[in-house]
Amino acid sequence: MHDSIGVEDIDAIAQGAAVLGAGGGGDPHIGSIVARRLVGKHGPVPLVSVDDLDDDTLVAPVGMIGAPAAAVEKILSEGELSRVLDVWAAASGARPAALMPIEVGGGNSMVPIACAAVAGLPLVDADAMGRAFPESQMVTFYLHGYDAGTAALVDALGNSVVVDGADAVWSERLARAVTTEMGANATMVDNVQPGAVVRACAIRGTLTLAHRIGTVLTTPDLHDDERLEQLLGVTGGRALFEAKVTDVHRSSTDGFTRGSAQFLGTGDDRGRSFSLEFQNEMVVAREDGEPLAMVPDLICVLDAVTSRAVTTESIRYGARVRVVAIPCDAQWRTPRGIEVAGPRAFGLDLDYRPFDEMGMGA
Amino acid sequence: MHDSIGVEDIDAIAQGAAVLGAGGGGDPHIGSIVARRLVGKHGPVPLVSVDDLDDDTLVAPVGMIGAPAAAVEKILSEGELSRVLDVWAAASGARPAALMPIEVGGGNSMVPIACAAVAGLPLVDADAMGRAFPESQMVTFYLHGYDAGTAALVDALGNSVVVDGADAVWSERLARAVTTEMGANATMVDNVQPGAVVRACAIRGTLTLAHRIGTVLTTPDLHDDERLEQLLGVTGGRALFEAKVTDVHRSSTDGFTRGSAQFLGTGDDRGRSFSLEFQNEMVVAREDGEPLAMVPDLICVLDAVTSRAVTTESIRYGARVRVVAIPCDAQWRTPRGIEVAGPRAFGLDLDYRPFDEMGMGA
Repeated sequence: MHDSIGVEDIDAIAQGAAVLGAGGGGDPHIGSIVARRLVGKHGPVPLVSVDDLDDDTLVAPVGMIGAPAAAVEKILSEGELSRVLDVWAAASGARPAALMPIEVGGGNSMVPIACAAVAGLPLVDADAMGRAFPESQMVTFYLHGYDAGTAALVDALGNSVVVDGADAVWSERLARAVTTEMGANATMVDNVQPGAVVRACAIRGTLTLAHRIGTVLTTPDLHDDERLEQLLGVTGGRALFEAKVTDVHRSSTDGFTRGSAQFLGTGDDRGRSFSLEFQNEMVVAREDGEPLAMVPDLICVLDAVTSRAVTTESIRYGARVRVVAIPCDAQWRTPRGIEVAGPRAFGLDLDYRPFDEMGMGA
Repeated sequence: MHDSIGVEDIDAIAQGAAVLGAGGGGDPHIGSIVARRLVGKHGPVPLVSVDDLDDDTLVAPVGMIGAPAAAVEKILSEGELSRVLDVWAAASGARPAALMPIEVGGGNSMVPIACAAVAGLPLVDADAMGRAFPESQMVTFYLHGYDAGTAALVDALGNSVVVDGADAVWSERLARAVTTEMGANATMVDNVQPGAVVRACAIRGTLTLAHRIGTVLTTPDLHDDERLEQLLGVTGGRALFEAKVTDVHRSSTDGFTRGSAQFLGTGDDRGRSFSLEFQNEMVVAREDGEPLAMVPDLICVLDAVTSRAVTTESIRYGARVRVVAIPCDAQWRTPRGIEVAGPRAFGLDLDYRPFDEMGMGA
């Protein structure tokens, strides 16, 4: 993968994006089937760097909003992908000339690839989270003071809604209410910005990063530990613990997948107890109640053998996993970043500390 | 009141619309204050008959959506009234040339008067319910197979949302979800139609009817019984019972005001027990559990002395009232009308019977 995304690149991007999804962002497997089919049908998607964007090229982030658990049951159609762009264009009187992922994590890395294939538009190698986050104002555009602008939402039944919120938080509230009514899942375009703004805000090269991670995960004949080592090398991450899932609580409420999972340590971590809490994505990892890592850093649950990502809607009793932390983009570690997407933004009574300064883990 | 609505007409229309509101449609007193102020500021509103509309004159129904209990606390601003038209026009690429009430009942008779004054547009002497109903697909346009089309919703905070539902029921579901998020109350334009369609669907002369009812209610020096007699004469209604309120249950849920009230008979009805159930509007009146009148017919609670309407959000313990039934428009008594707005549409396990064929009441 260099200047375009072909059918052969999609599996690796999906695998890498599943890791960067930190448990959320929608199911990458379902999304990759759709993206493979549509890229196969319409041809490779040109991939452009943020630095090559003209100042006034209009870039539209496109993705799914809602509970990942619902996305598993509602497979995206080609019609929705073209309709969401049409609805946004009609509402705004302007047409985007390029697309980008709003989040690189999970299925939301696949939606813009599929959409770009259908629309015949180039895709920008960047996103607005560098991971997945559950709420639509948790984007780097918002950190720089940009509201979501006009948001277009469509569903498979032919409903479409255009939201112009008074600010980014209102946009999120209204879009979330609409999403819940649409069956906890909708296709959305928002945060449409010209190239100059994308250059100032977006997190660069994240589709390429997902592809690199996925390449590690899909390389045959690597030993388990070697594969994990390479994954940590590519991402700058650190192993937190290895363990077995002993309990999972999960519910889909208010348009989110929320819950927690309990773990008993295995291997070198035998005898230790861990937990994870999630709201679409993993938000905090703890040992005996004490935090090991927390948002906005990425907490990723990986299959103990294959290192493939385990999502919050597929984590289950008895699974053997390795949990790793990956540093979030530097934009999220600023006071403004922590205010928007740190632990308190998720209702946790915790002050943010970067996991790599806590001196814990393996 | 003949060919325009002046400041001096508004009180009578509000009083009459409160009766036609069947307990709902929003508080007419608050609405009348706003309408008086804006008609005073911008001048009388031209009133046009359905029959004088050109076939292609675009007519926009405008009103509040949400729980009347919330409307009492959120007074409509001039800005919202012009903004909702602008949002609809921008989304549709066309500008309405006339306004109409979506429902003649309650505060929703006042909103289009205020909006017409602000926008400098004529108002059509008609509505799409001939009363008030709680759900936005309960309109005569829908009976004729017209969906709500593009719906524009705005709130006082500057949020705006445009809904294009797959059908009228989806439009209602999505608009209701947005309304709930906006604080259970929003200003909405939907069911915009050309004059030819309005002529086929609308219920004629209902602002004039409200004015006639209100004139009866505001005429000084009428005896209580004489006033009620005149009101029944103007509306074709029938007194069901006179009673004292002994209990009220009311809650605002899912964007509606829902509840029930219990009554003990007074005067000629001493010793009898009655009840009313409501969802924004009164939906069924019973004696000892047996229905006396039900939707789509109008069930109106009137103050025992003044005959002024008592709304579902203001009905209270100890109040002495007369309850009357008024026949709904003939469009609502068709099989299609009963399907859309009859008792089963409100979750009641009752077959519709017109109150005037049940041989009960005074």
